[in-house]
Amino acid sequence: MPKVSLRSESIPDSPFRLLIPYAEAAKAKGIHVYHLNIGQPDIHTPAMAMESIRKVDAPVLEYGHALGNHSYRAKMCSYYKKFDVDVSQEDIIITQGASEALFFVLQACLNVGENVLVPEPFYANYSGFAGMGGIQIKPLTSYLETGFALPPIDVFEAAIDPKTRAIMINNPANPTGTVYPETVLHEIAALVRKYDLFLIVDEVYREFCFGDTPFYSALRLQGIEDHVVVVDSISKRYSACGARTGAVISRNANLMSIIGRYGQQRISPGFFGQVLGEALLDLEDQYFEKVKGEYNRRRMLVFQRLQQMAGVKSYLPEGAFYCFAELPVDDAFEFCKWLLSSFSTNKQTLMLSHGSAFYATKGLGKKEARIAYVLGEQALGAAMDCLEEALLVYPGRTA
Amino acid sequence: MPKVSLRSESIPDSPFRLLIPYAEAAKAKGIHVYHLNIGQPDIHTPAMAMESIRKVDAPVLEYGHALGNHSYRAKMCSYYKKFDVDVSQEDIIITQGASEALFFVLQACLNVGENVLVPEPFYANYSGFAGMGGIQIKPLTSYLETGFALPPIDVFEAAIDPKTRAIMINNPANPTGTVYPETVLHEIAALVRKYDLFLIVDEVYREFCFGDTPFYSALRLQGIEDHVVVVDSISKRYSACGARTGAVISRNANLMSIIGRYGQQRISPGFFGQVLGEALLDLEDQYFEKVKGEYNRRRMLVFQRLQQMAGVKSYLPEGAFYCFAELPVDDAFEFCKWLLSSFSTNKQTLMLSHGSAFYATKGLGKKEARIAYVLGEQALGAAMDCLEEALLVYPGRTA
Repeated sequence: MPKVSLRSESIPDSPFRLLIPYAEAAKAKGIHVYHLNIGQPDIHTPAMAMESIRKVDAPVLEYGHALGNHSYRAKMCSYYKKFDVDVSQEDIIITQGASEALFFVLQACLNVGENVLVPEPFYANYSGFAGMGGIQIKPLTSYLETGFALPPIDVFEAAIDPKTRAIMINNPANPTGTVYPETVLHEIAALVRKYDLFLIVDEVYREFCFGDTPFYSALRLQGIEDHVVVVDSISKRYSACGARTGAVISRNANLMSIIGRYGQQRISPGFFGQVLGEALLDLEDQYFEKVKGEYNRRRMLVFQRLQQMAGVKSYLPEGAFYCFAELPVDDAFEFCKWLLSSFSTNKQTLMLSHGSAFYATKGLGKKEARIAYVLGEQALGAAMDCLEEALLVYPGRTA
Repeated sequence: MPKVSLRSESIPDSPFRLLIPYAEAAKAKGIHVYHLNIGQPDIHTPAMAMESIRKVDAPVLEYGHALGNHSYRAKMCSYYKKFDVDVSQEDIIITQGASEALFFVLQACLNVGENVLVPEPFYANYSGFAGMGGIQIKPLTSYLETGFALPPIDVFEAAIDPKTRAIMINNPANPTGTVYPETVLHEIAALVRKYDLFLIVDEVYREFCFGDTPFYSALRLQGIEDHVVVVDSISKRYSACGARTGAVISRNANLMSIIGRYGQQRISPGFFGQVLGEALLDLEDQYFEKVKGEYNRRRMLVFQRLQQMAGVKSYLPEGAFYCFAELPVDDAFEFCKWLLSSFSTNKQTLMLSHGSAFYATKGLGKKEARIAYVLGEQALGAAMDCLEEALLVYPGRTA
């Protein structure tokens, strides 16, 4: 049998997959599992967008433009204006989800063996997209005690080595819900300019800022226009994960021409995802006010419930729809497994993502878990009841 | 300004893009351009499939399974049975077009610096997918005189070096329309086993075989089940290029688990493309008979017209919807440019793809062009009129 490539070893098997059989077994026993483990919103995809798909009347489902449909890209410029970002159509390339955008950007910016600084905990799939290109992620640890604020700028500076080519952040952040303030972004900008690095910012949760820190797009940073690359997606914003529609935005024309070449290889992004994405740009602003209100109530509910649980350490996250918490347990992965295999109350239990999966540094996050508040308040309250009760009886509890 | 990665230099800019501004300029002058340059079929996407999209009634457009929807993969097994191929759902992974399938397969099978043997001329984007992973394509030249039959097996064997890990063929082939017979595939199979190579076969045109050579899937080859990886797509088969729905099929469980990990990184293939793909599996077989009849008439028309043009060398292609021809011109790329910039008859001209873009060996294909018969007979006849007239007056003609 021919051997597979060595590079495939750097493509991690999803650390969350290990828990799925336990969840399936729990369901087979008739136990209801509250899924707080995935970033799959329960909010309905706007009906007007689904309607736009039904109205498609193309006799031939043709390839589109490699960079994305002109009409869609043109319309996106107005969308970014709402965030005080001035970009033109040439600065935008449509991709198959933020996933493809991240892959293209990392490949275009970094060589094999070079590294990108990423604050940890971070979105677990960053490792895979980097790994596909032999790129190293150099993690800079952030801490629960500060609400996972970005590490101080001198920590970033000290970590830069001759192989460092980029800084990558997620603002607002998955898995922590942290929103990075303008002042901090200016510090990062200065560093990026000083060391001639790319600044890759994943802004897919930009609409979801609930706290005192307003969202500030990296595309507003002046003097580093050639350094900034933003990754975007409609998945979370409009509960349209299945559309697989994302984008890369940068004013670096050379970089964009390279990314365009990656785009040419796969001919074009999907037709329907672009129809949907373009239709969604006509959505009235009230939509987000309503959705934000809903997520904010959930955020407060999760925060307040965690505060009341003995031994749980958390904080009030400012954005996205995640919260990270330290649990009074010996090992959060074991606890997550136990929740599914050995615990239930009123035939209910919950599923969380274990924290260590979001760290590149071995040994970190062992007692932490990510809570995605992607269920309505009633279900979320019931899930918190489960968690509270579970923490009292878990054999490996430490509180 | 930060430098882009060196690897991006191996991602070729599409050689066909250079002609697009000329086509646009011709159209701006009111000249009708017959597009025989792209593999974008004009055949209508089956209405029942578009209807399946209109019937989607999902409140939330969710992520799907990383490997593709179970129901779709299960149903595909019956489809392959029509080609005497027995596969199970576990042997199938749904991808975003054949493009993503090719990328995943090459990355999973070959390391940086290793090579894959590919008969040339070949589908130009193979270079990009290989280049993304630092993989070399080692071309084995095939010739118009033999209708671009596969090179003799001893040519394959002589080309194998310690870095060779795979043989990749496209059956039926783009850009030549060649169909590889069973006997030749058995010879390749023996070689693949002898040298422990992967055999990657792109079978996206499998329905379109019009000649004496019946299609024979590589998945029928016995004794090399762990070596064979097939790439598939609904794009050409059902005129559904914009859906971006493809697949990888292999019985090598280890390889499929690796490819599955690549799939996990981008979470899932698109929702709508899978709905469409699954619906299309219910299409009655009459559909293909009709479509094949249509393509076959076009094939004969192009063949007969080319035969009548002085100095043109061609052959009767057996499959896909392409023909390759040697033209009596100094340089086919210059001729293609001239067709758009300096020629028209009755305010009409045509666009072809220059042959050299399909060769990895420098200097080959300079007088050749690919003709995609993706227009109805009337338009195709008019395009052939243009070509015939153009060849008589082109300043660089050699006949």
